[in-house]
Amino acid sequence: MTGSGDTDATVALTDRGFAYGDGLFETVLVRDGVPLLWDEHCARLAQGAHRLGFEPPAKGWLDALPAKAPRGKCVLKIVLTRGSGGRGYRPPLPAEPRCYWQFTSFTPMPERWERGVSVRLCQLRLARQPALAGLKHLNRLENVLARQEWQDDAIAEGLLLNDRDQLVEATAMNLAWFDQGQWWTPELIECGVEGTLRRALIDQGHLSIARASDAPLSRFLNAPSTCLFNSVQGLWPIVRCLDAQHQHVHGQWPIDDSVRRLQGDAHALLGYPSNFPIF
Amino acid sequence: MTGSGDTDATVALTDRGFAYGDGLFETVLVRDGVPLLWDEHCARLAQGAHRLGFEPPAKGWLDALPAKAPRGKCVLKIVLTRGSGGRGYRPPLPAEPRCYWQFTSFTPMPERWERGVSVRLCQLRLARQPALAGLKHLNRLENVLARQEWQDDAIAEGLLLNDRDQLVEATAMNLAWFDQGQWWTPELIECGVEGTLRRALIDQGHLSIARASDAPLSRFLNAPSTCLFNSVQGLWPIVRCLDAQHQHVHGQWPIDDSVRRLQGDAHALLGYPSNFPIF
Repeated sequence: MTGSGDTDATVALTDRGFAYGDGLFETVLVRDGVPLLWDEHCARLAQGAHRLGFEPPAKGWLDALPAKAPRGKCVLKIVLTRGSGGRGYRPPLPAEPRCYWQFTSFTPMPERWERGVSVRLCQLRLARQPALAGLKHLNRLENVLARQEWQDDAIAEGLLLNDRDQLVEATAMNLAWFDQGQWWTPELIECGVEGTLRRALIDQGHLSIARASDAPLSRFLNAPSTCLFNSVQGLWPIVRCLDAQHQHVHGQWPIDDSVRRLQGDAHALLGYPSNFPIF
Repeated sequence: MTGSGDTDATVALTDRGFAYGDGLFETVLVRDGVPLLWDEHCARLAQGAHRLGFEPPAKGWLDALPAKAPRGKCVLKIVLTRGSGGRGYRPPLPAEPRCYWQFTSFTPMPERWERGVSVRLCQLRLARQPALAGLKHLNRLENVLARQEWQDDAIAEGLLLNDRDQLVEATAMNLAWFDQGQWWTPELIECGVEGTLRRALIDQGHLSIARASDAPLSRFLNAPSTCLFNSVQGLWPIVRCLDAQHQHVHGQWPIDDSVRRLQGDAHALLGYPSNFPIF
């Protein structure tokens, strides 16, 4: 495994990660050198590499990275590419993957944990591509275009539907709704990124997977409570959903016991507080 | 416009082209410093940048690149990214795009011009994403996965269908079939890359656009002749199409006058020969 992690680290122009987005990434919350949901991040990276057809770095090699972090809270970004070589799109066999990493200091947003967030519906529809669904790969133009749809900082996130108007995720977070006594999140077998916090909440029995056909927008909008979450930001209750023009309110939700309970489960995994109000 | 084109040129780890595939590229045939289909390449790059929401380099700036080429035939690869900055997927406003370039010596394959090629059907289906269709953007994992499906060098290319079983393109070339006295190529409003040679052949009236719904695989397989082309390789007649397992022949075609005529039109645009046999 070739690695590079200086602050002014650079990538070869020939790296297939740059040429084609032929690679994967992880963004890991690290607190005082201790990574959160580390096993989930390493497992997703390894599964992604296998699905793309190259070898992931050894777990032991990855395990040495978080200790290089500065004190306090930061985000460790790991980028794993297929390396250079091959002829055009044709990958080299065997590939010589490369791993890049970078630490960025990070401050979470407690007011979003406590008071929840407003979101909007994105106009962009996610394309359905089962060969890439679930992976945190480097082909993220859909997310970029969706995030580019709004500039209003009062809107924390944008919800993404697929081309069948089924709800999938937000631009950088997974989502869930409460219904019939449980929390549901859409399956991600046709599009979307399988977040590590989502994985951990499912594995612990706090979150159930809804089939895509059971995730029309209307079900979400009519649910008694809803939220967004990822492994870096923690869990944000959603209090309001606007349309793409920010003129109509499609849904409004209270911050009730059910969302505080899921938030507590999520924050226990990340070392974030779960007693509110904190202000 | 920031530019970089040394042979050992590198990309910042923070460049959004590397992080998200947030950019575009062109591969231009250059002969003794003279670029072929240059206006088409520059136009596609500019249109792509506008669709992604950032400024392309000035035409005059691009015009200075091909003259830096070594003597003989080479390929000029130009990569245009949104540059660094922004917060996660959110692009910086305004962006500070970066342009990278690289020359690679190139030798075409006259035996493929003359004798045609065998192709196969890829198993991967292209996802339909109108927001990105036609662009030569840096999110090319579908092409990589499709090209990874076979290793047999006797198979020159792989044909790609979308998830509705409509024919779109090959992994790195556009395609056409002859029918009712004309050459047809699929519209690319839901997926696929709009090649510059395809654009020039359409503009000159040598090639017509078929609606996606008029491009089922069967129409292609039953056509009297078929071909592949791009602005670097020229035009290859297709003589045989195999299934994904390379066990069954789905289609066979002669190299007839109609394909030689389109090849002549294409090669006139690229300075390639059009009188065969040349061996």
